[in-house]
Amino acid sequence: MSKTEITAAPGIPTIVITREFDAPRELVYRAYTEPDLLVQWLGPRDLTTTIDRYEVRDGGSWRYLQTDADGNAYGFHGVFHGDPSPDGIVQTLEFEGAPGHVCLQTSRLPERGGKTLVSTVSVFQSVEDRDAMVASGMERGVRDSGERLAELLARLLAS
Amino acid sequence: MSKTEITAAPGIPTIVITREFDAPRELVYRAYTEPDLLVQWLGPRDLTTTIDRYEVRDGGSWRYLQTDADGNAYGFHGVFHGDPSPDGIVQTLEFEGAPGHVCLQTSRLPERGGKTLVSTVSVFQSVEDRDAMVASGMERGVRDSGERLAELLARLLAS
Repeated sequence: MSKTEITAAPGIPTIVITREFDAPRELVYRAYTEPDLLVQWLGPRDLTTTIDRYEVRDGGSWRYLQTDADGNAYGFHGVFHGDPSPDGIVQTLEFEGAPGHVCLQTSRLPERGGKTLVSTVSVFQSVEDRDAMVASGMERGVRDSGERLAELLARLLAS
Repeated sequence: MSKTEITAAPGIPTIVITREFDAPRELVYRAYTEPDLLVQWLGPRDLTTTIDRYEVRDGGSWRYLQTDADGNAYGFHGVFHGDPSPDGIVQTLEFEGAPGHVCLQTSRLPERGGKTLVSTVSVFQSVEDRDAMVASGMERGVRDSGERLAELLARLLAS
């Protein structure tokens, strides 16, 4: 199975995340944009994601909560920029635990021979913000998300 | 009079613009957020700015047009992230001539001894996008805007 690659080069306010999925891009795009699919893979395995709003359109806003077994909820929200499509999804993201800190994420989903290479470039307001995101333990959530998405896509393709 | 400094370091998808203004931050903040003031300084001297919408609040969207003497109009729009205040203004910006390309701008307005040092950090989706913005001739617009804002603040303080 493919692995998630996470790149955070020193001195540049960017994180690049890539992973290949054994599924056509249209299915990967559905998993990114349909709330009932999104909640099945987004985030660490031990948190439950619930969608508050998810307006998949230019200027549309989204918000979800990730809740742990003790009931602690972590909120995230953002705004889509441009109409999302399999050619790309551009959105801002704010963690509600750190108000005033915003990142801008660009996801591409090119397909090669039936597989889809998803890349997400996140740019932060500063290198310090980027480093804080890395230090927050985001890697576990990113790796869990990648594995869970691969599992979901396999289930969808088998059904 | 102070001059505008523009920094675009190689290999980093960022432009930093700073300029000191001889005015208190509250007045500078008004010039950034009140449409009837904004149109008096924003952009190159030979273009006319008209505001389509300007919702100064968390999640609010804005759009303006800059029109030249021949009637050619250039549209820009974006979304405020967090409630704008003299402590900071965070917003996205898209030039409608290049759809799909977004930048994230963070403006700070710290005051020192009655003067205000405005800094705006713009982060782009890639270094290529940043370089394209620099190559587009944005410097003239930025320098004109800084001079026009200084002139407007002087007028407001004298009135």
